[in-house]
Amino acid sequence: MKKLKIGIAGLGTVGKGVYEILRKDAEILAQKSQTIFEVVAVSSRSKKDFVDSKIKFYPNAMDLATDPEIDVVVEVIGGGDLAKNLMIAALKNGKEFVTANKALLAEHGFELAELAEASKTHVGFEAAVAGATPIIKAFKEGLAANEITEFYAILNGTCNFILSKMKDENLDFAPVLKEAQDLGFAELDPTFDIKGIDTAHKLALLAAIASGTKPAFNQLTIEGIDEISIHDIKLADELGYKIKLLAIYKNLGDSCQQAVYPALVKNSEKIAQVDSSFNAILTNASNAGLSLTIGRGAGGFPTGSAVVSDLLDIASGRSTYMFGKKAAELADAKILPIANRVGKYFVRLTVDKKLAQETNFFEAVFGSKIKVESAAFFDAEEEIICGFLTDAQKEQNVVEALKALDSSLVKAAKFLRVEKTDF
Amino acid sequence: MKKLKIGIAGLGTVGKGVYEILRKDAEILAQKSQTIFEVVAVSSRSKKDFVDSKIKFYPNAMDLATDPEIDVVVEVIGGGDLAKNLMIAALKNGKEFVTANKALLAEHGFELAELAEASKTHVGFEAAVAGATPIIKAFKEGLAANEITEFYAILNGTCNFILSKMKDENLDFAPVLKEAQDLGFAELDPTFDIKGIDTAHKLALLAAIASGTKPAFNQLTIEGIDEISIHDIKLADELGYKIKLLAIYKNLGDSCQQAVYPALVKNSEKIAQVDSSFNAILTNASNAGLSLTIGRGAGGFPTGSAVVSDLLDIASGRSTYMFGKKAAELADAKILPIANRVGKYFVRLTVDKKLAQETNFFEAVFGSKIKVESAAFFDAEEEIICGFLTDAQKEQNVVEALKALDSSLVKAAKFLRVEKTDF
Repeated sequence: MKKLKIGIAGLGTVGKGVYEILRKDAEILAQKSQTIFEVVAVSSRSKKDFVDSKIKFYPNAMDLATDPEIDVVVEVIGGGDLAKNLMIAALKNGKEFVTANKALLAEHGFELAELAEASKTHVGFEAAVAGATPIIKAFKEGLAANEITEFYAILNGTCNFILSKMKDENLDFAPVLKEAQDLGFAELDPTFDIKGIDTAHKLALLAAIASGTKPAFNQLTIEGIDEISIHDIKLADELGYKIKLLAIYKNLGDSCQQAVYPALVKNSEKIAQVDSSFNAILTNASNAGLSLTIGRGAGGFPTGSAVVSDLLDIASGRSTYMFGKKAAELADAKILPIANRVGKYFVRLTVDKKLAQETNFFEAVFGSKIKVESAAFFDAEEEIICGFLTDAQKEQNVVEALKALDSSLVKAAKFLRVEKTDF
Repeated sequence: MKKLKIGIAGLGTVGKGVYEILRKDAEILAQKSQTIFEVVAVSSRSKKDFVDSKIKFYPNAMDLATDPEIDVVVEVIGGGDLAKNLMIAALKNGKEFVTANKALLAEHGFELAELAEASKTHVGFEAAVAGATPIIKAFKEGLAANEITEFYAILNGTCNFILSKMKDENLDFAPVLKEAQDLGFAELDPTFDIKGIDTAHKLALLAAIASGTKPAFNQLTIEGIDEISIHDIKLADELGYKIKLLAIYKNLGDSCQQAVYPALVKNSEKIAQVDSSFNAILTNASNAGLSLTIGRGAGGFPTGSAVVSDLLDIASGRSTYMFGKKAAELADAKILPIANRVGKYFVRLTVDKKLAQETNFFEAVFGSKIKVESAAFFDAEEEIICGFLTDAQKEQNVVEALKALDSSLVKAAKFLRVEKTDF
């Protein structure tokens, strides 16, 4: 039986998951691929007890890229320069590469795809998006006979956990984040998660495959959940909506939307019902129609499952172009400026009680340009917090209407977008 | 650019879908696979207007198997002997084969897998299960680094449509079936769908991949939805459950469950919420954990999308063993006799009103062996129709208890199984 010799860079949660799967599931993996997967070297900041002491240990991950024994480098260090340098060196040395590093690929994916093709090697990154859920493979292979016209995705389990818990337990953002950190669901520095950056990295990768364009992370509109309050969640709930941090791609013909923001989605829509730390991708494809996949987005074994599926693809000669077609054929993404988005909006205003009692209050505040379709109210001492759902508007109109509000009447104003997934 | 020359057998809904996708999406398919997909011959009972007249037409599909120009035969005739003979002849002639024929593969899959391996060709059958949803690929590749420990699946859109409509519109089985036939959602002879046979064909294929065993269609427990009445649906609803026709696989260690039956699933579980003609597969995998995929199970373009994804796999050299590993390594499935199933049951009894008013009615009917956890009632003239949910029981106990019922007290009795998916 042939052998695939593997070097693992990084022995944190995911690295350990990969190592354990290759060990405990060796027999089933061999049956499926006629290949023995042998870990021949590992690298991490310190030696780990669970690794067989006969396996080579490199304090410097870069040594994996030059070890002639290694066929595939698995990079699960995460983060920046070291991972990038390792990847470049490994590809240049003709090694296959498997990574869970969404940040690296979202920011440098196009050049790395070119390098992989020039080096006649492949990059597997199933683990980079939606953990255990084989969505990269579905987009590149299973749905290959389609144009993917739009998708809505929950791609960050930490944010989904926080939003679900805020709603279920009627708590504000800060204490729930604190509890998530205590439980290990959120990082000590949660910026990447709660600011939407992690979701945007993943969106850039999925959208590149969906649209056949270069990953466009630097052009994305990115808003996180750190300014979502329990008032937003409760007003949305009264209007029949949940707030979800969504990664959104829509083909608009001449351009496309690629954006990450917390959006209101009707309670009755299936993606609104995906709670806790689960990830989900709702896809509309030109021939296949609507489909929804829900699964585990993180954890050592779920993410390890995705890494090892990439190793099986390599062993079976199934690896493909990184973004589904040749790098040279990837166009530049033309992303719609968010101010030009057309859709409904949730507008939250804090107003004096006296004003709120006026019969023509809506018009007094919004004028006649923006129509209100429904409203919910929340009583707070001398003020009333109001949530309005508008008719379909160009975003710029909403921004301008809020800017023009009379600050002596309206004490605080914000808006969130409303999305309609039709499923 | 290289070419893949295709012969299509059957030009019904799916055959037309495949033909149209290959025509309208030629450019995008070429970019993804560096291959031109050329339909060089077709076969059907009569010539079809939409097919380019320059393409060879064979009245006899068997001619596709011997045409030396053809690389891949796409079989979308369905049914029995002709499809089987065509497949055997095509494989023997070294042609790649793509089929949507679940009946053929469920009944003869093992021998056909052996033949494909001996002939060094491949069989793609993504279209045979859950239409557009790439679940075969997910099981064989995306989740390859897992043991699939159980799955619950809705695999027949016609049955799901009928059950959903019965509940939503408070109608009995017969008129809804009639309407589904009038709308074209159900066949004129609906036996394969409503008796659960189509679902069982698909179950046999998925379970073979999940468990690494030969498809075991002939050993399956198969019950359809044709004896589900609106009373069952309403009683279940009052108890908080929906009735769904499920394909179920569970690894039980020494044996496995493989069965198709209408089951009660709690309203709050996600698979209970998959309505209308959608298909769904809820999978529990050893490393990836729980995942749920919902998508279109039928239709020309959705099923065509799956057929063409198989063609892309062939063009890209990604085809794999038919059931995920070498045919010679597929074990015989050891299927638990359904009488040994352990689980909860929904028992429906029609009893005289007087009996129903007795305080110890439950025990009078069931004795002390079977405990009732909750009950719902439905008033009908002089009788009462009762739905009981039992505690966990061996199925044989329930069968025997129903057989032993005093027919002077209980006028009609039946049971359905209750399933708990934990998602």
